[in-house]
Amino acid sequence: MSSSAARYGGNAARSAVRRPQRPDTLASMRRKGSPPHLLTLADLSPEQIRTLIQNALAAKYVCKNLSPRALISSLSKRTVALLFSKRSTRTRVASESSVEALGGHPMFLGKDDIQLGVNETLEDSAKVIGSMVDGIMARVGGHHEVETLAKHSPVPVINALSDLYHPTQILADIMALHEHYAPQPTPPDHDAAEGAHTSVLKYFQSSVDPLKTLKGKKVAWVGDSNNISNELMVTLPRLGMEFSLAAPKGYDAVDDRVWKRVIEAGTESLVKLTNSPAEALANADVVVTDTWISMGQEQEKSDRLKAFEGYQITNKMVTDAGAKEDWKFIHCLPRKQEEVDDEVFYGPRSLVFPEAENRKWTILACFDMLYGQWRLP
Amino acid sequence: MSSSAARYGGNAARSAVRRPQRPDTLASMRRKGSPPHLLTLADLSPEQIRTLIQNALAAKYVCKNLSPRALISSLSKRTVALLFSKRSTRTRVASESSVEALGGHPMFLGKDDIQLGVNETLEDSAKVIGSMVDGIMARVGGHHEVETLAKHSPVPVINALSDLYHPTQILADIMALHEHYAPQPTPPDHDAAEGAHTSVLKYFQSSVDPLKTLKGKKVAWVGDSNNISNELMVTLPRLGMEFSLAAPKGYDAVDDRVWKRVIEAGTESLVKLTNSPAEALANADVVVTDTWISMGQEQEKSDRLKAFEGYQITNKMVTDAGAKEDWKFIHCLPRKQEEVDDEVFYGPRSLVFPEAENRKWTILACFDMLYGQWRLP
Amino acid sequence: MSSSAARYGGNAARSAVRRPQRPDTLASMRRKGSPPHLLTLADLSPEQIRTLIQNALAAKYVCKNLSPRALISSLSKRTVALLFSKRSTRTRVASESSVEALGGHPMFLGKDDIQLGVNETLEDSAKVIGSMVDGIMARVGGHHEVETLAKHSPVPVINALSDLYHPTQILADIMALHEHYAPQPTPPDHDAAEGAHTSVLKYFQSSVDPLKTLKGKKVAWVGDSNNISNELMVTLPRLGMEFSLAAPKGYDAVDDRVWKRVIEAGTESLVKLTNSPAEALANADVVVTDTWISMGQEQEKSDRLKAFEGYQITNKMVTDAGAKEDWKFIHCLPRKQEEVDDEVFYGPRSLVFPEAENRKWTILACFDMLYGQWRLP
Repeated sequence: MSSSAARYGGNAARSAVRRPQRPDTLASMRRKGSPPHLLTLADLSPEQIRTLIQNALAAKYVCKNLSPRALISSLSKRTVALLFSKRSTRTRVASESSVEALGGHPMFLGKDDIQLGVNETLEDSAKVIGSMVDGIMARVGGHHEVETLAKHSPVPVINALSDLYHPTQILADIMALHEHYAPQPTPPDHDAAEGAHTSVLKYFQSSVDPLKTLKGKKVAWVGDSNNISNELMVTLPRLGMEFSLAAPKGYDAVDDRVWKRVIEAGTESLVKLTNSPAEALANADVVVTDTWISMGQEQEKSDRLKAFEGYQITNKMVTDAGAKEDWKFIHCLPRKQEEVDDEVFYGPRSLVFPEAENRKWTILACFDMLYGQWRLP
Repeated sequence: MSSSAARYGGNAARSAVRRPQRPDTLASMRRKGSPPHLLTLADLSPEQIRTLIQNALAAKYVCKNLSPRALISSLSKRTVALLFSKRSTRTRVASESSVEALGGHPMFLGKDDIQLGVNETLEDSAKVIGSMVDGIMARVGGHHEVETLAKHSPVPVINALSDLYHPTQILADIMALHEHYAPQPTPPDHDAAEGAHTSVLKYFQSSVDPLKTLKGKKVAWVGDSNNISNELMVTLPRLGMEFSLAAPKGYDAVDDRVWKRVIEAGTESLVKLTNSPAEALANADVVVTDTWISMGQEQEKSDRLKAFEGYQITNKMVTDAGAKEDWKFIHCLPRKQEEVDDEVFYGPRSLVFPEAENRKWTILACFDMLYGQWRLP
Repeated sequence: MSSSAARYGGNAARSAVRRPQRPDTLASMRRKGSPPHLLTLADLSPEQIRTLIQNALAAKYVCKNLSPRALISSLSKRTVALLFSKRSTRTRVASESSVEALGGHPMFLGKDDIQLGVNETLEDSAKVIGSMVDGIMARVGGHHEVETLAKHSPVPVINALSDLYHPTQILADIMALHEHYAPQPTPPDHDAAEGAHTSVLKYFQSSVDPLKTLKGKKVAWVGDSNNISNELMVTLPRLGMEFSLAAPKGYDAVDDRVWKRVIEAGTESLVKLTNSPAEALANADVVVTDTWISMGQEQEKSDRLKAFEGYQITNKMVTDAGAKEDWKFIHCLPRKQEEVDDEVFYGPRSLVFPEAENRKWTILACFDMLYGQWRLP
């Protein structure tokens, strides 16, 4: 983090006199060493996660209060391949607009554009595509696919969703919760010229700390155990948060690879697994769920509706279970009424729309660091 | 319009010394207040339409006689979502290239990328996508869909085609007719640096007036009553033009919402509805038609071929009906031979290719004003 | 070529003081006269091919050793339409990332986006799309389709693959072979500011000569006679290289249009056609093949596997045939095991990955010259 501050801070004086293309800046953007990848937040330390959130907060402030032009152009003339083997709206929109905001070109390749692993091996695709672009973001089926891409790609690979993990979603959740619980910072005045990003970032790095904001909060997942809950489980407890998960029997298995990370982190005591929503929700600050009927699972719908009886999030249900009085609700979208009613989803407890918007700012921060700066936060 | 002139004019001196990213310029591009939308030209005054056409003429002159680089970069680092639930060539190409020409990124989301209203409500899509991008252009089915998007989007929404209206097509028609009837202006020499756009625009705003050019001209629509003829009907008469429409019985209904706008504008006397092509064509300056067999209507083809007998535009048919000697032909494309023969379509009376090219310049003007300047013309 | 050197060279001094948008530079980018097209390398002289390779080498050096930002922005604010009626990975990724690297926007239109020749004539599509963009790259079925586009388009058309030719693939092959056989040049130090491209290009133009590097080398094609072998046949012999082609009876026909170009060039003596892989491979420096089972030919698979018995490239087979001791292998990808085994494909003789990467640099050079500079090399 200190080196990140140094990089942005070091450019601040120069940017103020508007020489954004000085050779020394560019030299620092030469790619050296192995590419950094982001496959799950479990691979990042809490401090690295903090840096990403601070960067996301700074980018959001710059875009909304100054101008997108004031953002650093760290992807200028660069192309990022978005390899999405499944349809996506939020991740795609967040990713495409983030690459553009950093001055680059997002190249979306959907399942009709490229069939990963079909006409050529994943290894060959990683080598060839990676030799022509500056970053790869991949939404895959099995997690091993994104691992194979990362192993062979000469450029950084970011996991945009696998069957095991969803790191960029959970970064947005953390940011939305931090923004809700922490007072809004008021950076000193900046003009809107390129370079303002640098000084705003410096301000956020010295004045806001998501780890402090979130320490001790309890998050309750009520629903299917899936890639989102996996990512929460390997991340939140390491930030000093409690994480409880209620899923019906038969839908409550936690993947061995995930639990192994929990053990390695020594955070078992902060994780509670149960089949009772009420037990999970007791004393919760934040309630989170996801659809039980994902893409491709429609045929199982009636079985699932039965299994998940009593799992729909409503004000009464959460309050009866003894959640904190000011409990809040998050959801990764798209949402179906089965898992949460309109009153909660559109009501004052819901953080879902800021959470969704933060997909953009957190992804932008990841892209700037990994693809632009070529290093982990 | 005066404020538009002021904005461009006010920047001219500064641009000449090449400081395109001065803070004051950027500050003027901060988004304040409700976003401006464009769902139909019926919502714009004739003066606002004039401003858009002048802007489009200026952008065309700059790109073709100076350089695309001389255009204002009002969408720099910004992303525009193109939500197209139906396939499109001209609108899409015009829109993508316009966003790029203004320095931004067009994000095309077709029916295979996003199914509006299927996995989540239009309201949710408008909120979420709108929170990550700087403008939305939507090609929808029912007009209520684009109205819903506009109601909930935090950024400007432009109608790229609905079942009721097609505003950007008619702007291109107006521009093509103006260019045909008005002498070509000769702006003073400009260099091709960024900023030239500003002074060229100032020249066009003070020296060309499409309203004067077109006043009194008669446009005759011969064909199906549809979204294109609707848009012409609510627009041309308010510019002081006559509009006649000939459609066969059963294909001649004018939507109540459209006729209500004609009544509100007090332009009934300039609109003539008939089932006789000859009657519509009498004294016409401009003949316009569209395909009778739109996408998805192929099964009705034989019924329609019968109903539209005598509706194919030919030189003989139009001349016999008593159109002006120098009558011209326009068509929104793609064209089928049923509605117009090769002699007219590829002949000297045809303005279809300049009209098609003007899709770009008029859309560029809309994007600059609504998405870039965040206001109606 | 001298004028190319002049253009880049002439700008060098100015670029060094960082005024990349001087009016005189822009003026030189105005489009005058008929657009230049690239449908096959048979239309280019060896000297023109040399210029393209030099430009590609310079762009590669700049991007990898300095920064993509140091590339000339010759497509700034311009849009290139990629009309691909067949799926593509390498050509598409190379093309999209090249347009971005030159500062422009690639607009990909696949078979689901636009059906060339279906709803409107190719002539109309060429006119309309060409009036809105700055260049067209087209992957078509029949070669006459790309010829029709070029005939009617107001902007340059580049053939991204037709049933007859594949010029951009063979440029990448030539570049990869040159890089293998020629010592790596070491340009003098440059900073990474925009403008470095100009001086690096000047260096490569004065110090490397792919024609000298490749003169006298023998390339042996062992496989199906197709668009790739056609392009090699009309190109390599004109660079002073030998080209032998072994294909089974029934798969060995050379299109009359291709052979006519060989005759016109007077290069028959450098071309050898045979049905014996061993005969083709004797004394070969370079072995090249392609899949025998292309997209859409899966049903013929068993017939073809039989016909091509003995055609799989292996170390033993090539060595037994008497190829040069240090023979190298190239392949346009994607690759199937039928035509080449893993030992060769992934082994030290294989140049396939540098060859694939060079798709980008050679396409970038074509785009800069044709779309950016509006002229042949």
